[in-house]
Amino acid sequence: MSFNEKFNYYRETFEAFAEEYFSKTDEWDLTLTEAVKYSFFAGGKRIRPVLMLSVSDLLGVSFGKVLPFALALECIHTYSLIHDDLPAMDNDDYRRGRLTSHKVFGEAEAILAGDALLNLAFSILADECVKNPFDKTARAMQIIADNAGISGMIKGQSLDISSEKKNIADEKILYEIEENKTAKMIISAVTVPAILAGKDEDIFKSFGLKLGIQFQIVDDILDVTGNKASLGKSTGKDEQSGKLTYVSLFGLDRAKERAEEIRSECKKILKKTDNCDFLKDFVDYLSSRVN
Amino acid sequence: MSFNEKFNYYRETFEAFAEEYFSKTDEWDLTLTEAVKYSFFAGGKRIRPVLMLSVSDLLGVSFGKVLPFALALECIHTYSLIHDDLPAMDNDDYRRGRLTSHKVFGEAEAILAGDALLNLAFSILADECVKNPFDKTARAMQIIADNAGISGMIKGQSLDISSEKKNIADEKILYEIEENKTAKMIISAVTVPAILAGKDEDIFKSFGLKLGIQFQIVDDILDVTGNKASLGKSTGKDEQSGKLTYVSLFGLDRAKERAEEIRSECKKILKKTDNCDFLKDFVDYLSSRVN
Repeated sequence: MSFNEKFNYYRETFEAFAEEYFSKTDEWDLTLTEAVKYSFFAGGKRIRPVLMLSVSDLLGVSFGKVLPFALALECIHTYSLIHDDLPAMDNDDYRRGRLTSHKVFGEAEAILAGDALLNLAFSILADECVKNPFDKTARAMQIIADNAGISGMIKGQSLDISSEKKNIADEKILYEIEENKTAKMIISAVTVPAILAGKDEDIFKSFGLKLGIQFQIVDDILDVTGNKASLGKSTGKDEQSGKLTYVSLFGLDRAKERAEEIRSECKKILKKTDNCDFLKDFVDYLSSRVN
Repeated sequence: MSFNEKFNYYRETFEAFAEEYFSKTDEWDLTLTEAVKYSFFAGGKRIRPVLMLSVSDLLGVSFGKVLPFALALECIHTYSLIHDDLPAMDNDDYRRGRLTSHKVFGEAEAILAGDALLNLAFSILADECVKNPFDKTARAMQIIADNAGISGMIKGQSLDISSEKKNIADEKILYEIEENKTAKMIISAVTVPAILAGKDEDIFKSFGLKLGIQFQIVDDILDVTGNKASLGKSTGKDEQSGKLTYVSLFGLDRAKERAEEIRSECKKILKKTDNCDFLKDFVDYLSSRVN
């Protein structure tokens, strides 16, 4: 299979599982359910689930075992987008080419839909722990919780906001934002299968960190060079709001160089692992978005 | 010990545990940490932890075992207050006699502080599952997650908002709001110790449901008859915003009668359990707030 075929295979496997899961929730007859589904099925690329399934393939973890973790991670990712888009946060009207949650359902329901998705992630993981009350299940959940929380993604979001407010231009803080806001969730995606397989986690942690930072730099570059039609969201927002990014700190050319450097570093880490062509292609796929 | 002494004993036991836990988080050197602690240590009555510790006492569950669950539940309760107070939700400037989170830290940080507390609850519970990977630990977490989520508290909040917007006056929906918004978290508080002890959960579920509804009706009555100084929050808000409550639907006198009826029903359920004087007194304590 080509990279694209494999990407679509992972993505569709995830999509079918998620649709099946949410189809059982029809008794949730609420505006809130509609809001939750609106954002969850907004046509996202499913980067995190795709990465999780591909590492599972690599390490021999069954999809049946890992899919609930992928679903939980995507619920957390989706909630973070809903809350990020709120007027008090990034104030975005469009996401993936559609109106954002608060533009459709109002701010109160958007806040609750985000809360519901974060909570749902842990209902899903609690179910797994009840079904498989082993330390690996619990550790995989723990990694997801810690990387999403106040020592992970939420820390990154808070630093992001305060650096914007206080007009901070500090490379150390920029790195903390990239690491926490973006890379921690990518680390979860590639590390959970290693935990479930009882394999060495460190190599996947290092890879996830680099890949996550690459992901953020590419995103920052696209905010300058991309256009709304192809990205499905507003561009030029970082400069408008005075956000601290690699581009704002070092300029576009240096950011592109840095993205290339990190691409090489990602590839170097992968040399230590067999059969990881998909992950290597994934690194190139990310880079290709800005070239 | 008198009821008050016992209440304070449970409360202080919880407070000491929570302070110890949060003191370890000093590396979280962020505005966000400050916002999280500001709301968590705002002088709340700790109703849910007190109930959880008292049922643990009754069933012979050690405090060491149950305190992390009490902490997680109080984190969830605190996040729900922060988000509830936001301008897009109930728009409250005061809570427990102090300015609300968004008035002190701004809306963005208040949203993130709420998210952080919800996430933290599950980091705490994941740690418990890693330390004790047994089905009881996992089931206790599952109950907390389900009762807090889209089939529990968040469902109640969403119904609350939509009934307000659409000016709905429907007893069935009112009951769904009371059950989900308030009672589900009280059910978690009294049921988790039964799960951890491997004892019959049903009696505690029924008791928690009744007690939670009593709690909500008392709260609705106090919104009319109480004053800001003694409650520490604004009053008269329900009528202003056209909220659906037992008082708005049936009037103050009928609401007081209903609170008394439910008090008897709570006591009746407790007849099936030995040594539950504290819980009986707790029911009376709740009622006494409006008498």
